[in-house]
Amino acid sequence: MMRTRPLKVALLGCGVVGSEVARIMTTHADDLAARVGAPVELAGIAVRRPDRVRAGVPAELVTTDATALVKRGDIDVVVEVIGGIEPARTLITTAFEHGASVVSANKALLAQGGAELHAAAETHGTDLYYEAAVAGAIPLIRPLRESLAGDKVNRVLGIVNGTTNFILDKMDTSGAGYSEALDEATALGYAEADPTADVEGFDAAAKAAILAGIAFHTRVRLDDVHREGMTEVTSADFASAKQMGCTIKLLAICERAEDGKSVTARVHPAMIPLSHPLASVREAYNAVFVEAEAAGQLMFYGPGAGGSPTASAVLGDLVAVCRNKVAETTGPGESAYTRLPVSPMGEVVTRYHISLDVADKPGVLAQVATVFAEHGVSIDTVRQQGKDGEASLVVVTHRAADAALQATVGALRKLDTVRGVASIMRVEGE
Amino acid sequence: MMRTRPLKVALLGCGVVGSEVARIMTTHADDLAARVGAPVELAGIAVRRPDRVRAGVPAELVTTDATALVKRGDIDVVVEVIGGIEPARTLITTAFEHGASVVSANKALLAQGGAELHAAAETHGTDLYYEAAVAGAIPLIRPLRESLAGDKVNRVLGIVNGTTNFILDKMDTSGAGYSEALDEATALGYAEADPTADVEGFDAAAKAAILAGIAFHTRVRLDDVHREGMTEVTSADFASAKQMGCTIKLLAICERAEDGKSVTARVHPAMIPLSHPLASVREAYNAVFVEAEAAGQLMFYGPGAGGSPTASAVLGDLVAVCRNKVAETTGPGESAYTRLPVSPMGEVVTRYHISLDVADKPGVLAQVATVFAEHGVSIDTVRQQGKDGEASLVVVTHRAADAALQATVGALRKLDTVRGVASIMRVEGE
Repeated sequence: MMRTRPLKVALLGCGVVGSEVARIMTTHADDLAARVGAPVELAGIAVRRPDRVRAGVPAELVTTDATALVKRGDIDVVVEVIGGIEPARTLITTAFEHGASVVSANKALLAQGGAELHAAAETHGTDLYYEAAVAGAIPLIRPLRESLAGDKVNRVLGIVNGTTNFILDKMDTSGAGYSEALDEATALGYAEADPTADVEGFDAAAKAAILAGIAFHTRVRLDDVHREGMTEVTSADFASAKQMGCTIKLLAICERAEDGKSVTARVHPAMIPLSHPLASVREAYNAVFVEAEAAGQLMFYGPGAGGSPTASAVLGDLVAVCRNKVAETTGPGESAYTRLPVSPMGEVVTRYHISLDVADKPGVLAQVATVFAEHGVSIDTVRQQGKDGEASLVVVTHRAADAALQATVGALRKLDTVRGVASIMRVEGE
Repeated sequence: MMRTRPLKVALLGCGVVGSEVARIMTTHADDLAARVGAPVELAGIAVRRPDRVRAGVPAELVTTDATALVKRGDIDVVVEVIGGIEPARTLITTAFEHGASVVSANKALLAQGGAELHAAAETHGTDLYYEAAVAGAIPLIRPLRESLAGDKVNRVLGIVNGTTNFILDKMDTSGAGYSEALDEATALGYAEADPTADVEGFDAAAKAAILAGIAFHTRVRLDDVHREGMTEVTSADFASAKQMGCTIKLLAICERAEDGKSVTARVHPAMIPLSHPLASVREAYNAVFVEAEAAGQLMFYGPGAGGSPTASAVLGDLVAVCRNKVAETTGPGESAYTRLPVSPMGEVVTRYHISLDVADKPGVLAQVATVFAEHGVSIDTVRQQGKDGEASLVVVTHRAADAALQATVGALRKLDTVRGVASIMRVEGE
């Protein structure tokens, strides 16, 4: 039974993603209507620069007054693909106040102000969906929020930034250094002119905050996420990784502590074994590995960015919130009932791969081993290599608290026989 | 806001999956209540043999009268993990008539009678969810039905049977023959005493029917699925696959025809390139690769069977249908509006890898090539190898209709110079 009054959709933003959303809404209108149970009509498109609107976007729908569009009174759903904190936050809040549900692709806003937006949606009896905010087209928010709703997620390990995965994959496969690989990523359009948000891990950290909150049914804010970028990863690190049967990925890692009483969220480069399913994620692809108590190990893989993939995720959410409007209901809202605290990085249990330049003389290994022992860090393997009077010492630790590992490295730097710490990298996914 | 009247759940079947569902419902009752918004109570467990009920299952809830349990009048949700067609079908229909929603893990029933069950659920305003019916714990039905609801799926390529993947992986990695690998699978509990349903592709065909129906918004019945088992795959086939940079997997393949006017669904062993993400799916794991117009290439990976993983999928659905009950709504039902016909196997466009034993004399290749040309099948590569007066000829075709490829093979068999067709295998995933 199809209801005939169409659902009216306001589109905020008409860049790479927005114009693709507009295109699919127009060309696939019949499919969307059949799947929703009512026609879905694009009722207005707010843009900053109407002279830049792409070909194919219906010009008569374009306005520069986003606020007026959202307040118009006949809008059922607002699709927000502007990005950034303001004016997106105010527009979304205004949409809720006017009874509209919201579909957003805005990871930064969700990571910083998700709790408040969820509360506003609930107050006004509307939906807030944001599948597109994490890992583009890959269904991830919905599986975590709904498919695994009867399970207990213990760990999420994800490659959630395509730019940095492209750069690291290039370094791994071609032996290029960081800047050379970044240049190639920029030339191919995988990296922006200012790549800071990607290479320093800000983008991945926002996604980690969102994923951790959903996975553990608690609130994790951007500030709770420990963040290290990947600009200092070198070809030498990749060579070390290869010797260990590993590669290097920039990972977003969300974990429940072993005692179940806290969670952690962090972003940093890490070595992972080549046998791990994440190791073979190439180019700008994203993938998220989830460990749940009953389900075991799951992985979700696909394009993490781009106009069409992101539009796919936006439109899936659009169909869902439109169905909810037709059924006069709302979908699952925020689930933060566990109120688990987020522990600092020092309490994260991990392993270190440490490469030291040392004096090539007897007793060095004993000195180094003593430092590890004094900090309660147990050594898994040591490899010594001599080269022209100098030597390198590669130590891989057993699992220990990050604070203890950091303190160990600090003490190693002070040893006379240690000339330098060539690289430190965490080892994950084992 | 938590409503206090509990939702009452009847569990039909208490084997490997059912007992795990009962265990998690008991041990994680608080989490389930928080996620649903109301307590979820296990109200009765129907089993055939009460003497076989596992330790930990509350004995006072056990009954042998499944019909009476479903008809009791206070049941909100029926979880059906009996399997098979009857009595599951009648019990599910009775559940709908009594206003209960149903969560089922029954692939055979869904593949054969899904349309009727969906219609019955809709008539009675209840839900029918079955994430556990395909690929165990891997969220797949929900992503296809909801996350991709705004996209157009063109192809689903899946490893959906863990038993056969274990056997093929063993043959690939250890060089074992089929029966040796089957014996190992049986000894390790991956294959049943009678492995027919798995190795002849019946299990995968049921899943293909379900996936194709959901992916293409149409109805695909079990009889519509072309099915070939994997019992005739040999070590020689694996050797041929390796020479092509491929491995062999038993695939469920659902495709939209290029003109968009029909769909196909099939299960058979096929060579796929080692670079394809499905090629590295090891042991009894499952994975499903989805190609959608806007999203691009996605993959979903995880354990495809087993008590805990299947229970995870059942419980995710249980939370969803319970939430719907609390909100007095239902989730998305069957979507079969496209009414696309299912074409027979002969119309499927694919590629063949054909290995022939031929006489080692001049002119054979010309004869063979003529047969291909007469059937309109274009050859991609040919490799000739001589051995003691005989020779082998390996031909890989370009894409052609399966009927033309079959006819070509039939004509090749009649050539005097062709002593035998050593193997035929389709090539997919390129």
